[in-house]
Amino acid sequence: MSRYVYFFGGGHADGTAAMKDVLGGKGAGLAEMTNLGVSVPPGFTISAELCIEYIKTRTYPGTLREEVAANLQRVEELIGRSFGALSRPLLVSVRSGAAVSMPGMMDTILNLGLNDAVAEALAAETGSPAFAYDAYRRLVQMYGDVVLGLKGPRSPFEALLRAKKETRGVKRDIDLPAEDLAALVGQYKEAIHRLAGVDFPENPDAQLWGAIEAVWRSWLGERAVAYRLLNHISETLGTAVSVVAMVFGNLGEDSGTGVAFTRDPSTGAREFFGEFLVNAQGEDVVAGIRTPEPITKMAERLPAAYTQLVETKERLERHYRDMQDLEFTVERGRLYLLQTRNAKRAGAAAVRIAVDMVGEGLISDEEALLRVAPEALEQMLHPTVDPRAECRVVVTGLPASPGAAAGQVVFDAQEAFAWAAEGKPVILVRAETSPEDIRGMAAAKGILTARGGMTSHAAVVARGMGKCCVVGAAGLEVDPDAGTMCADGGSFRRGDWITLDGSTGRVIAGRVALVSPSTGEHFERFMKWADRYRRLRVRANADTPADAARARAFGAEGIGLCRTEHMFFAADRIEWIQKMILAKDSAGRRRSLAKLLPMQREDFEAIFEAMDGLPVTIRLLDPPLHEFLPHEPEAIAALAKDLGLSAARLTAMVESLRETNPMLGHRGCRPGISHPEITEMQSRAIFEAAVALARRGLKPVPEVMIPLVADVAEYRNQAELVRRVASEVFLKARHEVSYLVGTMIELPRAALTADAIAQEAEFFSYGTNDLTQTTFGLSRDDAGRFLPAYVERGLLPQDPFQVLDQRGVGKLIRLGIELGRGVRKDLKVGICGEHGGEPSSVGFCHTVGMTYVSCSPFRVPIARLAAAQAALKERGLEDRTAATV
Amino acid sequence: MSRYVYFFGGGHADGTAAMKDVLGGKGAGLAEMTNLGVSVPPGFTISAELCIEYIKTRTYPGTLREEVAANLQRVEELIGRSFGALSRPLLVSVRSGAAVSMPGMMDTILNLGLNDAVAEALAAETGSPAFAYDAYRRLVQMYGDVVLGLKGPRSPFEALLRAKKETRGVKRDIDLPAEDLAALVGQYKEAIHRLAGVDFPENPDAQLWGAIEAVWRSWLGERAVAYRLLNHISETLGTAVSVVAMVFGNLGEDSGTGVAFTRDPSTGAREFFGEFLVNAQGEDVVAGIRTPEPITKMAERLPAAYTQLVETKERLERHYRDMQDLEFTVERGRLYLLQTRNAKRAGAAAVRIAVDMVGEGLISDEEALLRVAPEALEQMLHPTVDPRAECRVVVTGLPASPGAAAGQVVFDAQEAFAWAAEGKPVILVRAETSPEDIRGMAAAKGILTARGGMTSHAAVVARGMGKCCVVGAAGLEVDPDAGTMCADGGSFRRGDWITLDGSTGRVIAGRVALVSPSTGEHFERFMKWADRYRRLRVRANADTPADAARARAFGAEGIGLCRTEHMFFAADRIEWIQKMILAKDSAGRRRSLAKLLPMQREDFEAIFEAMDGLPVTIRLLDPPLHEFLPHEPEAIAALAKDLGLSAARLTAMVESLRETNPMLGHRGCRPGISHPEITEMQSRAIFEAAVALARRGLKPVPEVMIPLVADVAEYRNQAELVRRVASEVFLKARHEVSYLVGTMIELPRAALTADAIAQEAEFFSYGTNDLTQTTFGLSRDDAGRFLPAYVERGLLPQDPFQVLDQRGVGKLIRLGIELGRGVRKDLKVGICGEHGGEPSSVGFCHTVGMTYVSCSPFRVPIARLAAAQAALKERGLEDRTAATV
Repeated sequence: MSRYVYFFGGGHADGTAAMKDVLGGKGAGLAEMTNLGVSVPPGFTISAELCIEYIKTRTYPGTLREEVAANLQRVEELIGRSFGALSRPLLVSVRSGAAVSMPGMMDTILNLGLNDAVAEALAAETGSPAFAYDAYRRLVQMYGDVVLGLKGPRSPFEALLRAKKETRGVKRDIDLPAEDLAALVGQYKEAIHRLAGVDFPENPDAQLWGAIEAVWRSWLGERAVAYRLLNHISETLGTAVSVVAMVFGNLGEDSGTGVAFTRDPSTGAREFFGEFLVNAQGEDVVAGIRTPEPITKMAERLPAAYTQLVETKERLERHYRDMQDLEFTVERGRLYLLQTRNAKRAGAAAVRIAVDMVGEGLISDEEALLRVAPEALEQMLHPTVDPRAECRVVVTGLPASPGAAAGQVVFDAQEAFAWAAEGKPVILVRAETSPEDIRGMAAAKGILTARGGMTSHAAVVARGMGKCCVVGAAGLEVDPDAGTMCADGGSFRRGDWITLDGSTGRVIAGRVALVSPSTGEHFERFMKWADRYRRLRVRANADTPADAARARAFGAEGIGLCRTEHMFFAADRIEWIQKMILAKDSAGRRRSLAKLLPMQREDFEAIFEAMDGLPVTIRLLDPPLHEFLPHEPEAIAALAKDLGLSAARLTAMVESLRETNPMLGHRGCRPGISHPEITEMQSRAIFEAAVALARRGLKPVPEVMIPLVADVAEYRNQAELVRRVASEVFLKARHEVSYLVGTMIELPRAALTADAIAQEAEFFSYGTNDLTQTTFGLSRDDAGRFLPAYVERGLLPQDPFQVLDQRGVGKLIRLGIELGRGVRKDLKVGICGEHGGEPSSVGFCHTVGMTYVSCSPFRVPIARLAAAQAALKERGLEDRTAATV
Repeated sequence: MSRYVYFFGGGHADGTAAMKDVLGGKGAGLAEMTNLGVSVPPGFTISAELCIEYIKTRTYPGTLREEVAANLQRVEELIGRSFGALSRPLLVSVRSGAAVSMPGMMDTILNLGLNDAVAEALAAETGSPAFAYDAYRRLVQMYGDVVLGLKGPRSPFEALLRAKKETRGVKRDIDLPAEDLAALVGQYKEAIHRLAGVDFPENPDAQLWGAIEAVWRSWLGERAVAYRLLNHISETLGTAVSVVAMVFGNLGEDSGTGVAFTRDPSTGAREFFGEFLVNAQGEDVVAGIRTPEPITKMAERLPAAYTQLVETKERLERHYRDMQDLEFTVERGRLYLLQTRNAKRAGAAAVRIAVDMVGEGLISDEEALLRVAPEALEQMLHPTVDPRAECRVVVTGLPASPGAAAGQVVFDAQEAFAWAAEGKPVILVRAETSPEDIRGMAAAKGILTARGGMTSHAAVVARGMGKCCVVGAAGLEVDPDAGTMCADGGSFRRGDWITLDGSTGRVIAGRVALVSPSTGEHFERFMKWADRYRRLRVRANADTPADAARARAFGAEGIGLCRTEHMFFAADRIEWIQKMILAKDSAGRRRSLAKLLPMQREDFEAIFEAMDGLPVTIRLLDPPLHEFLPHEPEAIAALAKDLGLSAARLTAMVESLRETNPMLGHRGCRPGISHPEITEMQSRAIFEAAVALARRGLKPVPEVMIPLVADVAEYRNQAELVRRVASEVFLKARHEVSYLVGTMIELPRAALTADAIAQEAEFFSYGTNDLTQTTFGLSRDDAGRFLPAYVERGLLPQDPFQVLDQRGVGKLIRLGIELGRGVRKDLKVGICGEHGGEPSSVGFCHTVGMTYVSCSPFRVPIARLAAAQAALKERGLEDRTAATV
């Protein structure tokens, strides 16, 4: 006979902490605590597998009833009470609990076993009719809501309670006298009869089974399903059901209830942290009507129980080797633990606790590294919205670049720049950004766009700048002409204050308090351990000397992607790049390029200097040339005048460069092949800069990268040009600098023919943004309209622009590395797409043997930790990442 | 010692026909004929390998001079003449000839061995000073042009000759007396001295070596290089050099020269075909001053030589087992063959000759199939420009859809329709076409666009319609408002006549004579053989009942791609599809779809009927919905009125649906996932049509195809919907029809995860247009600006939208088939991109084990033949495709 029920109580449990899959987190915790000798009310847990069976068939095995009855009897015997008895009645709770924590998403019913007769008996036994009828009232309410489905707007109970309190003229539930509570029970039952069409069952057994089935059903509750989708939790886990003897914190001044953390979950400090209420039930703490007292006060109010609690929390932390989150009740002086679990914590706390626990000898440094979710570091590097602040959310978009910022709304990049120059903090709000907005973006505290996805222009640029950014705020209407933006949550004018939370995507009305970022000693020690264990190198994507310096401070070991095009948007340059593009012939292009050469050279000198001794991968001009041209009539008119053309003629020229699918058009290495003088100028700037630095005794390490190669012939064409220019520069300077030439692998065909390409290219850098676009046939600019729905409906597990698609794109990456290393054993392979800073993607890069990942400067610590975790997991060490809040 | 020189003469040759790589085609032919006992002037051939060595080093092996001298001596001995001697002087020609025929692309020099003294001697010997000085004049001219580099506009010789004829008052060169010719020699030499800065060498040996080196150098001549690039001929082959004793057809009335084909190269009829001239040199035939006589007349004029020629041509055809193209000279009654080679022939001739030769027992049916280039069939299926017509080419574009058409130019689809309704033949000329032009395209005789590539909208639609089309005519400026088009070759107004040649891309001024297509008995027999040997099935891409019927007539075994969207552009439907797209909600969409349902059902009924018993693969709606919306202000205004919206509001709605990269946007299965009611309506139309036909006793075989799937979850979503609708329709009708549901594999990710997809999909159809776009990251709409230059510069061997890229895209195809068949052994796999009708791509499809290819109806015979050839080649049979003209 299969076993479905697991007993715990009296110092011994059938289950253990390891049986989460069967008992759920809560059941496993109760069993483990019981076995540890911690004081826990006795009870039993029904295996989670029955949940799924029940959902499918609406039946359960015939033997289950016998098993439950037998276990209930053991509970009765252990504590000398009987379920449904009129003398010393036993009350129980029925609690949900899945293998993976889904806090608050499923249901629990308390005080089962009460009916009119039992309540009367309990009143007599405790000498407190108010306690007995309060418990009874709560049972009927919960039963009506949860088991009989009245939860929600139809639920009559709160209104009846409120009416009763008004009639009686009291504010607190606890101040209602017993007769009122008894009367409420009657009113509740009538309401149930009226609304649910059935009666509240007086039979305790019927109550118990009704509650068990309701908990099973709550697995499919709307909130639970949504939570699982959001957190990638399997539908097939099911919830276990724990039936636990009730203990009461509301039996007088020697009783109480509380929640506690074994350390401070915000800072990680090793201080007992929590709250309790005397003479209260657990839900009273949550309800917030009475203000709980800090846990340390319990030493005065309930001294014996407090001593026992402190002793217990120490034991549990040592046992679980992690910070615990405890729920407890004191019934007439006796402490009962109701739950223990690994506690959620803030990012900084996660790091501090992990480091401290190594110091305390509880865990090894390897375990410490596995304890902190890489994303948790983000909170330490950016300002965040104060968790205690009251937030009125206007609209929620995609969390495109983490951090938080408060500022005044402006709708125009130039205005953003002007206001910032006056010292005003501004939030730049646009329907979507374009390269013309760069200066305004740099000046703003944060960026908000109505359109675009996680890899839209705004998102990519903001991450590069380490600037908070929310994109794709669906429902946000931006009217720059009127100087307004509006969404369901409110309307704002130019100059109004808003606060952006780039870590959650929230757009909040007004100016909200922020918490400053903090790293510090623990962080430094922690990151050193990460560097000790990781094999992957970590570089940064950085286009400016400032970015480069910041990246280096965050531990970047070089630049994996320096985008040269961003340099062209500066006011003193855009003119020349536009003239170059519109030139009639090669000679005309050369004249404009000659103006750009010294500027590019200076850029590179500064970047090489910031990265002295470390490699700098410079990508040659990549975007379609028409991106540099003006599109607004005024800008066109100005340029036309400058060029001596009519505006109509220039408009026609700009229009003729327009492409149907620019992402698949004349970009990447293609313009460099059509117009070799562009590649020539850029190469010259790179090598002249390198030579200049080397002469000053510095060590520039240039790696020139050819973008968007589909065939080795394109690579060869451009690489030969780069090498020729290098030779010319070195010859003229009588000085050589060693360098590499390599390519982006960002088209499926490049990965598929990587053997041919590796014959000539000295390194590969996977451009996984474009590779994802082409592999999926999905434009990141257009995907915003349907990709979120895809993820929501489970058609895709994640947004592949955020989390690398290992099954499809990853297969191409593996293939490309195999083919490439097949012909060039020591081929350097990296990644420079947005995925280079996403932890699971970094893990993948480690697994497939990449040399390095490159990500935005602020993500460098995240990538370092993710790389270390990947190396540790490869050695079989278990991932026990703590949840963060 | 290596051997570089191969002798032929006196009934024996050192080389054979098999030694083309060494001797070149011409040298191998001369050797083979000599060995066969055919009368050939003696001579020798210098190995082609020396050409490449000479080009690289400008030197040749020291032993070569000795070898040449020894072989020259053998020639002298054989015919009793001496090179440079004053008594019985030997004259020789120096001829180029590579392993692969490059007609007219390299140089030849005749009459070497003449100088002032030898000319005098030859005059004395032949008794014809005019003959001797004419030969001398020709030598000096050729030497000056070819060896000394005067060829081209600088060449002085024709002008001097013309002046001389004018002075003498004669029209024909032949009428100049000997003294004039001798004077011309002097003038020519002076001109050489003046222009080339060197003297014409009197020394015969110097002449010989000058000529040999010049032939080697001509391998790198501009025309030769261009020809090789165009025909994918390797640069490293080099040309052999044949030195041949001169024979003269201009020694009197018993001499002559001619060219002949062993059969009629236009029709393939077994009739001796050719032309000759009495008392003439070969170049006189080409020059066209004297009109040659038909070869049969030679029986009267040179009866003995003619008998010998007929006997020789029979022998050569039997020997080579193919139609020969012969050059011959009769010197004083004696026949000499100067060249034989497999003759180029028209498409129809190729088929007829192959079929006839099987009947004659010369070749097997398998060999016959390998003799005809699949593309050659195209000429038989479409009208072609009369090869004898005088053509003034206005501009040349891409040959997008074969055939030829003459008509009057119109610039507007509606006008095209209106004019065609009046019975005028029209050519629709557009910058590029869009789906709104469909009706006008259908009405036009031919379509010309200034932009777009081989897979642009115009090209794809025109091929589907079997209508002649030229696209991407660079340099063509179309001004529809002014009603004009102009190019370098001329300007045209609305109503002017032009002729399009869709097989070559030529746009020809005026109305040019066309040759009607012809198939017939030989074609039928030939195609039956093809069907016997091929393993690949051949289907057609057809969207209308007319297309389907045509495809079936051409031997299609089903429809591999029926695009449902084309059906939506009809005037009575577009309104409803537009309303559907602009509907506010699902209910609104359903209302419009309900109007479309009966129309779609009728379409499918007619197509199923035309394809009774054969599978019809119907692709669900694929293009982005915004393609169906109007973009012109008038059309928007009309629709807005109809919808009760302001034009501004509708413009905004249309604009909001615009995508940055529509190719990578909300299309394929994605709209069907967002709006399941679309898929539902289409499925209902398909299955209701199938049931209606089945009830009439017909056999519809529907295969429903889900487009643009990136992940199996998308496929599953749509396939479940299709199957649900099928069940509903069958249940209601109490009638079942068996059907398949499958998917396009047109994104890299689909191929990479084909195992997961094949778990659920019953067939794969490779959409290689889109797969090529995404694999290369190349939009076919935008590639026109640089892809032609890529191919021209050798960065890509071919346009991958025309010829399947086997190395990249092909690797994905292989992978997808392996993964797919790994989980579903009998998976049906086809191709429905443009490549399905391109012979080398069809060969690839055979090799990777596809079940079928699908192509436009007119390409069905081509695919059938290509499939047969692939099957034969797989068995090791040699490809000996005859060249066609």
